[in-house]
Amino acid sequence: MVQISEIGERQLIEDFKSFIRPEGRVGPGDDAAVIEKDIVVTTDIVSFDRHFPVGMTYEQFGWYAAAVNFSDLAAMGARPIGFTASLALPPTLDSQNAYDIMSGIDQCAEFCGTGIIGGDTKPGPGIVAGTAIGTMDGNSPMLRSGAQPGDIVAVTGPLGGPAAGYLAIENDIDCQDAKDTLFMPIPRVVEGMELASSGVVTSCIDLSDGLGTALNTICKASNVGIDVEFSFLKHEKFVDEIAEKTGTPLEKLLIGWGGEYELMFTANPNRLKKLYDAELEFSIIGMVNDSGEADLIRDNNRSRIDYGEY
Amino acid sequence: MVQISEIGERQLIEDFKSFIRPEGRVGPGDDAAVIEKDIVVTTDIVSFDRHFPVGMTYEQFGWYAAAVNFSDLAAMGARPIGFTASLALPPTLDSQNAYDIMSGIDQCAEFCGTGIIGGDTKPGPGIVAGTAIGTMDGNSPMLRSGAQPGDIVAVTGPLGGPAAGYLAIENDIDCQDAKDTLFMPIPRVVEGMELASSGVVTSCIDLSDGLGTALNTICKASNVGIDVEFSFLKHEKFVDEIAEKTGTPLEKLLIGWGGEYELMFTANPNRLKKLYDAELEFSIIGMVNDSGEADLIRDNNRSRIDYGEY
Repeated sequence: MVQISEIGERQLIEDFKSFIRPEGRVGPGDDAAVIEKDIVVTTDIVSFDRHFPVGMTYEQFGWYAAAVNFSDLAAMGARPIGFTASLALPPTLDSQNAYDIMSGIDQCAEFCGTGIIGGDTKPGPGIVAGTAIGTMDGNSPMLRSGAQPGDIVAVTGPLGGPAAGYLAIENDIDCQDAKDTLFMPIPRVVEGMELASSGVVTSCIDLSDGLGTALNTICKASNVGIDVEFSFLKHEKFVDEIAEKTGTPLEKLLIGWGGEYELMFTANPNRLKKLYDAELEFSIIGMVNDSGEADLIRDNNRSRIDYGEY
Repeated sequence: MVQISEIGERQLIEDFKSFIRPEGRVGPGDDAAVIEKDIVVTTDIVSFDRHFPVGMTYEQFGWYAAAVNFSDLAAMGARPIGFTASLALPPTLDSQNAYDIMSGIDQCAEFCGTGIIGGDTKPGPGIVAGTAIGTMDGNSPMLRSGAQPGDIVAVTGPLGGPAAGYLAIENDIDCQDAKDTLFMPIPRVVEGMELASSGVVTSCIDLSDGLGTALNTICKASNVGIDVEFSFLKHEKFVDEIAEKTGTPLEKLLIGWGGEYELMFTANPNRLKKLYDAELEFSIIGMVNDSGEADLIRDNNRSRIDYGEY
């Protein structure tokens, strides 16, 4: 007998991939599956013990449970068309908290242009297993495998907020802005749909596992390298402040952390006008090359970017 | 504070329905939701503590977790196009058992003409939250609300098997056939698709909560009554034997139990040729009327059929 704990959760998920069939055009390895003509499906579990930091409300926990799924749809460029919520909650939980979780899910689904279409509830330790369903509306899904040397690399918003929020809680630092980015991530659904319909995006991924992991994932899936310019990594002032207060390298917060939900994408540099015309907000952070690895350029020094620990 | 345990799980699910939006043509109250043109989605949680009777294998548990979801698609008449599996498993579980669960899910999905398209795994007490996705392929989904006085009421197979299996385990009776119907329910996906495409079915539901509950649910949703003829309720010989050995009324096994996955449907009696032509197996068990209640006719005596306890 080999216990799951000995194998490790990541490896188990990796092993489970052998069971996943590419029914349609996109199989395991992307943010979501594409089946039939253009139906996109993704599923994610969140739990009280892992995803419920001090100060988060039950409503925010519900929002979060939905947001992590909608972010996967966003990374493909899909339009959300439904969400199912399976809840396994402690029988001793205040029922108001259960309603608050559902209300948070509902609000996030509404923000993403859809609603809860089904669910189930059983006793359990505090788990929400959500499934988000979307459609490509005829657009091609954005995969992880299409980046080309010469493409620009960009992100849809500032980085490091959720990492700063986590450190603020750990170190008892009063910074609600930081905590809010951790508690209520904004799935970039509208941005994802714009990116997919633009036709100029060559690959896309969300930053749920952090920028470092996202960069390495794109490099591996697309068989390319990426140079990231450190000074291009936009972030809020509170990220600097919390990095300083806690003695954490800024690089760690911006690159080596997860739990944030901006999209990272690559695009043909000669056709960016389409994205600017769409009034999409994004910052270019680097370039795709053929080196096969993700590197950080900081003060003219080059260093390897690792997968994040998250 | 009012604990979930005080409200009860059924009531909580009922309360949660206020959050469920009819995004498409079919809202809460049917076996599955219909969104966009004809995408059908359903979700169900099964758990080690509730759905893992003595003698069941991990592979069968996985099959079961998938089957309960595909049965909901079958009740709508949908063709399955994908399945997502979210597993929350104890870290101490033998990893082989985890693979066996996935293998069981995979086999059931394949039996239903599709495959696992995505999933997630986190630590937990032994929960599988499955979501099945299907398409109507242009057919109208079969609802619970269309039964008309004068329709026949029919089921797709014999009744009482899973109840007999449960009693066999409880009473240490050696009857593998009974246990197998409990351990590996067959989702009537092909039958559901035939029924939906026939155009003669006026309502449909699966028997996961038992015949009694199914009958009362159709009566309420369609605003009709149903008379069921007891002698029409087909069942295997072992159901009689186990009823007798355990001193359980046969009626209880056939009507007042859940966990079986035949479909019950109503249809226009003048157009049944379509169903016979499709070589669909089914038994007529009764007739729809306008009495507003579900009654059992047994030896010319009439009695009220209650919702099951399951």
